[in-house]
Amino acid sequence: MGGSYTPRDFRALIFHDAAQRFAEGQDNPRAYLEACLETIAAREPVVRAFVVLNEAGARAAADASATRWKAGRPLSPIDGMPIGIKDLIETRDMPTQMGCAAYAGNFPKRDSALVQALREAGAIILGKTVTTELGAAHPGPTTNPFNPEHTPGGSSSGSAAAVSARMLPAAIGTQVGGSIIRPASYCGNVALKPTQGAINRGERQGASQSTAGVHAGCIEDMWQVAIEIAQRVGGDPGCPGLFGPASPPAPQRPERLIAIETEGWAELDAASKAAFEAVLDRLRAQGITVLRRGDHPWIDAFERSIANAKTISNRITAFEARWSLRNLVAEHPDGLSARGKARLASVEAMTVEEFRDCLLQREEMRRHHAALAPLADALIALSSPGPAPVWKGDVPGQPLAPRPTGDITFNAWTSALGCPAVTVPLCAVGGLPLGVQVVGQPHTDARVAAQARWLLGAVEPVTL
Amino acid sequence: MGGSYTPRDFRALIFHDAAQRFAEGQDNPRAYLEACLETIAAREPVVRAFVVLNEAGARAAADASATRWKAGRPLSPIDGMPIGIKDLIETRDMPTQMGCAAYAGNFPKRDSALVQALREAGAIILGKTVTTELGAAHPGPTTNPFNPEHTPGGSSSGSAAAVSARMLPAAIGTQVGGSIIRPASYCGNVALKPTQGAINRGERQGASQSTAGVHAGCIEDMWQVAIEIAQRVGGDPGCPGLFGPASPPAPQRPERLIAIETEGWAELDAASKAAFEAVLDRLRAQGITVLRRGDHPWIDAFERSIANAKTISNRITAFEARWSLRNLVAEHPDGLSARGKARLASVEAMTVEEFRDCLLQREEMRRHHAALAPLADALIALSSPGPAPVWKGDVPGQPLAPRPTGDITFNAWTSALGCPAVTVPLCAVGGLPLGVQVVGQPHTDARVAAQARWLLGAVEPVTL
Repeated sequence: MGGSYTPRDFRALIFHDAAQRFAEGQDNPRAYLEACLETIAAREPVVRAFVVLNEAGARAAADASATRWKAGRPLSPIDGMPIGIKDLIETRDMPTQMGCAAYAGNFPKRDSALVQALREAGAIILGKTVTTELGAAHPGPTTNPFNPEHTPGGSSSGSAAAVSARMLPAAIGTQVGGSIIRPASYCGNVALKPTQGAINRGERQGASQSTAGVHAGCIEDMWQVAIEIAQRVGGDPGCPGLFGPASPPAPQRPERLIAIETEGWAELDAASKAAFEAVLDRLRAQGITVLRRGDHPWIDAFERSIANAKTISNRITAFEARWSLRNLVAEHPDGLSARGKARLASVEAMTVEEFRDCLLQREEMRRHHAALAPLADALIALSSPGPAPVWKGDVPGQPLAPRPTGDITFNAWTSALGCPAVTVPLCAVGGLPLGVQVVGQPHTDARVAAQARWLLGAVEPVTL
Repeated sequence: MGGSYTPRDFRALIFHDAAQRFAEGQDNPRAYLEACLETIAAREPVVRAFVVLNEAGARAAADASATRWKAGRPLSPIDGMPIGIKDLIETRDMPTQMGCAAYAGNFPKRDSALVQALREAGAIILGKTVTTELGAAHPGPTTNPFNPEHTPGGSSSGSAAAVSARMLPAAIGTQVGGSIIRPASYCGNVALKPTQGAINRGERQGASQSTAGVHAGCIEDMWQVAIEIAQRVGGDPGCPGLFGPASPPAPQRPERLIAIETEGWAELDAASKAAFEAVLDRLRAQGITVLRRGDHPWIDAFERSIANAKTISNRITAFEARWSLRNLVAEHPDGLSARGKARLASVEAMTVEEFRDCLLQREEMRRHHAALAPLADALIALSSPGPAPVWKGDVPGQPLAPRPTGDITFNAWTSALGCPAVTVPLCAVGGLPLGVQVVGQPHTDARVAAQARWLLGAVEPVTL
C-alpha cells in the first residue's frame, strides 16, 4: 500500500528560478506553461486534479506575460506563473461548481478578489482544481500523485495534487478545518494557511475560521503568491491583511520550539510518531531547544485546551453553514450528497446557546495559545495524522466512510486559533509524504514562513 | 417645505397589542394583514415603499397564523406580524434586486438567515422594501410619508417609510454608514441598529461594519422582532449574537447620559440644535445628569476621535466593496448608476496601507468609546443632521447631488464603533420628525433598548 515518494529524489516544480531565466531571456512564460500542460496531459488521467482548464486563455495570458518580461516590465515576480484556483472560488472565465451537484454549471462571470489580484500580478489562471463538496467531507475524484489508491487529502484536493504532480508551481486552497495543511502534508507540498483574514476571501465570508492560502513547491513561491495577493486586495473586510516583506523572507533559525502533540497523538501510527520524534532529534542536534508537554504548565494547559478542537471546530463551522445549506437543499433536494445532508442534519438541533459555548471554548484555546508566545519562537507539529490513508471510494451498501480525505485532528486547532501555519515536507512514511508544520501567533505569517524555510533547508528529511 | 408630522397626534402602527387581541380571539392575523394592505393601497402610490409585494403568500401565511392563534399555539409573540424586508436581503418567494440595474430580475430562491428565522417565528413576509442602489448613495423612488418632497432617508428607505406610513408594524433594514438610524429619524420610527454581528446578516457578510436591524412603531415590537431572529439564527459567523431578554426589556431610567455632538454639530441647523438642547433640558428636569464636551477630558477625546468618522467609515466601506463592484461593472457596464461608478472610482487608487490606516483610526474610536463606559449609562445624540431634507430627484445637466437621502454625520460614528444604537422620535422640526438615539457599549443592546423605551415614555416630545 505504500507510495513512490522519496524526499531525496522528489523535486517539486518551482517558479522563482524560471522567473530569473525569463528576466535573462533564457526562457519564457509560454514555454513554462507548455511544460505544465505537458505534465497535465501525462498525469491528469490518473491524478484528476482539475475540474476545468482554460488552456486558450492561459496561452494568451502567457504570451502577454512573455512580452512584458521581454520588455523588462513584468507586473510582479509571479508574472507568468501558471496557477490553479480551488473550485470554491469564483473566476470569471471558468465555472465555479464547488464539487456540488447543486452548483453544476454554475458560472458567475466574476473574479474573486484574490483572482483579481493574481491577474493584476500577471499570474496565469490555468484551471479550477477539485474541491470536496462545498469544502466539506464528500470527496472529489482526485488521487494522491504518489499512489492513486490513497487520498490527496481535502478539501483542497486538486490544488494539492496539481502542485505535487508538478502540473503547477502553485495553487490556491482554502481551509476551514484542515483543508490546506493536511492535503499539502499528504502530497509533499509546502503550504501556507495564513492568519485568519490575512488573505481576502472575496465572496467566501460565511465561516468564522476559514482562510484562503497557497500550495507551492517551495517557500519562495508560496510567499510570493501570498504577498502579491495581499498587496493588491488585502485581507478580509475589517482585517489588516497579510503582514510581511515583498520578497520571500530569508531562512530564520528558531532558538526554541514547542512540539505540540494535538488531540490526534493517541491514535497516531507508530511510524509517524517515530518520524516526528526523529525530526525533533535532528532539531535538538542543531542546538534548538524543543519544549513539549510536561516541560511547562502553560504547554500542558494549551494541549488540554485544544484536546477537543476538532469537535468544536466542526460544530462552529457546521452551525455557520446551516442557513445556506438549508437553502441549497430546499432549492435542490438532490443537489447535496448524503454526507452533506448528514452534516446539515447533525446541526439542525444545535441552539444559539450551544454555538456560543463553542465560541467561548475557541476563545479559551486562543488565550492559552497567546500565553505560549514568550516561551518559544513557534510551535511545531505534524501536519496530518500520518501519511495519506487509502481511499478507493464508497462501497455500495456500506455505511459512508466518515473521513474519505483524512482526519483534521492535526489541523482543527490551528484553524480554530486563527493563527498562521506553514507545512514543509520533512518526513516520508511508507513511501508517502508527511508534513511538519510551523505554527505562530496571529500575524506572524512571515516569521513562520522564514522558520519553515530554515527547516526545509537545514533539516535532513526523515524516511521511515 | 414643512411636513405634517406632529408627535402628539401621530400614532404608529403597533403589533404587540394586536397579538394580545389575537390571543383573546377579538382579532386575527388575517384581519390585521388586510388593514395593512388597505393602508398600502391608499398610500403606496405616493410613498412608494415597496419594490414588490407577495399578497397571496402573505394572506396564506396570515390564515395559517390565525389557525395557530385560535388553537392557542402561536409560534412566537410575532406570529402573524406582517413585515417588510429590505431588498438587499434574499427571500425565496420574491426577487432581490438591490435597487441596482445589474440585479434587475435577480431572483435567488433562497431565504436569508434572518428571513428563515422570521418565517419560523410565524411572521408574514409581505414585501421587499426599496433600498438605495446596493445600500449606497443612489436613491430609489420612496418619498417621506410626512411630505413627499422630502427624502425618507436611506439606504433603508422603503423599510423606514412603510413603518412610518402605518403600512407595516415592522421592517428589516441594514446599516453600514447610517442606513437604519437616519431614515428612522426622518420617518419618526423607532429602530435598532444592533451591535456589530448581533443579528445574522446571512449572505451579506462583505462589509466589516454592516448590521441588520429593525424599524418599528414601538420599542416592544422592535425588540421582539430582533430577539426572535437572534434566538433562531444567532449572529454573524464567529459572533455570539444578540444578548437580551426573550420579551421587550422594561423601561429603564438612566442616571447619567453623555450628550454627543458628533462631527455634524457645526453644520446643524439652529432649530434642530435647539430641539436637542430642549430634550437635554427635559432630561435634566427629571434629575438625569447630562455630561458633554468640556465636562470630562475623556468625552473631549472621544469627540475628537470621531471627528472624522464619516470619511473613515466611507473609505473602509468603499474599499471593502471594491472587488465586488469591479465585477459588477465588468459584467454589467450599464448596471451601476453614475453615483455608484463614482464611488468605485474614488477608491480605485486607495492602497492596502491606507485601508489599514483607516482601520487603526477606527480602533482608536473604539478605545475612546470603551473609556466612556464608567462615566455614564449611555450616550445620547441626534439621529440625523436635522429633519429630512428636500429631495425632488436629480436635475438633468446638473452635477449629481452627493447625498440625496441625507448625510451620515450623526450615524457614521456608531457604525464605526460597532455599538448598539436605538433611535426614538423625540423631536419635530418644521413638521417633520427628528430622532434622538441612545448609544451603548457593544452587546448592551437590551439596556440601550430599555433606556430608549424609558425616554419614549417619560420625555415629552419637543416640537419646534
